[in-house]
Amino acid sequence: MTPKITAFERSPDRGRGLARDMRVRWALEEAGQSYEVRLLSFNAMKEPGHLALHPFGQIPTYEEGDLALFESGGIVFHIAERHAGLLPDDADARARAITWMFAALNTIEPPIVDLGIAKLLEGNESWYEKRMPLVQDRLRKRLGELSARLGDAEWLDGEFSAGDLLMVSVLLRVKASGMLDEYPNLCAYVARGEARPAYKRAFDAQLAVFTAASAR
Amino acid sequence: MTPKITAFERSPDRGRGLARDMRVRWALEEAGQSYEVRLLSFNAMKEPGHLALHPFGQIPTYEEGDLALFESGGIVFHIAERHAGLLPDDADARARAITWMFAALNTIEPPIVDLGIAKLLEGNESWYEKRMPLVQDRLRKRLGELSARLGDAEWLDGEFSAGDLLMVSVLLRVKASGMLDEYPNLCAYVARGEARPAYKRAFDAQLAVFTAASAR
Repeated sequence: MTPKITAFERSPDRGRGLARDMRVRWALEEAGQSYEVRLLSFNAMKEPGHLALHPFGQIPTYEEGDLALFESGGIVFHIAERHAGLLPDDADARARAITWMFAALNTIEPPIVDLGIAKLLEGNESWYEKRMPLVQDRLRKRLGELSARLGDAEWLDGEFSAGDLLMVSVLLRVKASGMLDEYPNLCAYVARGEARPAYKRAFDAQLAVFTAASAR
Repeated sequence: MTPKITAFERSPDRGRGLARDMRVRWALEEAGQSYEVRLLSFNAMKEPGHLALHPFGQIPTYEEGDLALFESGGIVFHIAERHAGLLPDDADARARAITWMFAALNTIEPPIVDLGIAKLLEGNESWYEKRMPLVQDRLRKRLGELSARLGDAEWLDGEFSAGDLLMVSVLLRVKASGMLDEYPNLCAYVARGEARPAYKRAFDAQLAVFTAASAR
């Protein structure tokens, strides 16, 4: 059964691969699993039909037979559990890889989202410039700790895993700010993720959607 | 083998059960699994010995034989996967419960933490009062969507699961702000969580630590 995911009809990141469908596309590509994509406008995402599938009115969703999932972390885990290549076989290594999935989404992504909120939603507010160093310092603390843990390792814990897939995806969201450049080993880590053939196929697929929408 | 977790020697929440060790204690109690607790001072959490265990210098951690985990979501998942009572047997229901685990930590907790950051770390800043409505509205949007999805159901998806355990734990962090009162069904949902015997045992255990520390 070919799973069906949802993605933005016209991604607000203009095809830079930062929307959350990218994580799911990448996982499916690592797993060698073909998939279909249903594109949604911003209006369609807030309609009852989509809210029944995704309570928070976002993308991506994942439909496979009778199963319907939302939340990119949950979807990536579902794919990782059912296909080889995204979670180690060894029970302890598998538990550690899953902990890194949660760390990416619960410890590293929130301060990255906060930086984006500050810029996108509060960029014109009177407090923007004075507050920004606080937001950056909170993120810098986490990036520094992550950099110290990674050291000169290739991936976070042994072989590439769904933990790395989510961590690289999350770190990509801060790349344009220049803050990642303060941590050369994190830059190299992200570059290793982007160099994976499965990442490239997923990136090209989401870019093609944006390019087609822009041509219309 | 009895697992060993870490917790605050003196919790900054003064024993209100909002520190992240509570989630792990609750999961272990639901699973009927005894555990040991190693208490840490704020200074000890930043020392190399603890950073080797927890790269972000926080609690909780989880040690069981050769396995060492950090990040409460990863630990709760590990417990849920190995014991009955926290994840459904049916494969689709299990995948949905795991999606709710990620939703609690990646969609609902971040705006709750942002509210806490605004109050605790930026409460004396010049922008505090003007900015607060924006922070509250972002959280209100998510709470409203969650409330709409829950409706009058007892738990998020069928039987109580690790998804509910994490969602209730996360919502408890916003209870004192009064914002949860805007959603009576979420209040009742949280109260159902707090009424579980396993929750109560976990709560009493963490409170006893704080009470003992205060008496010294």
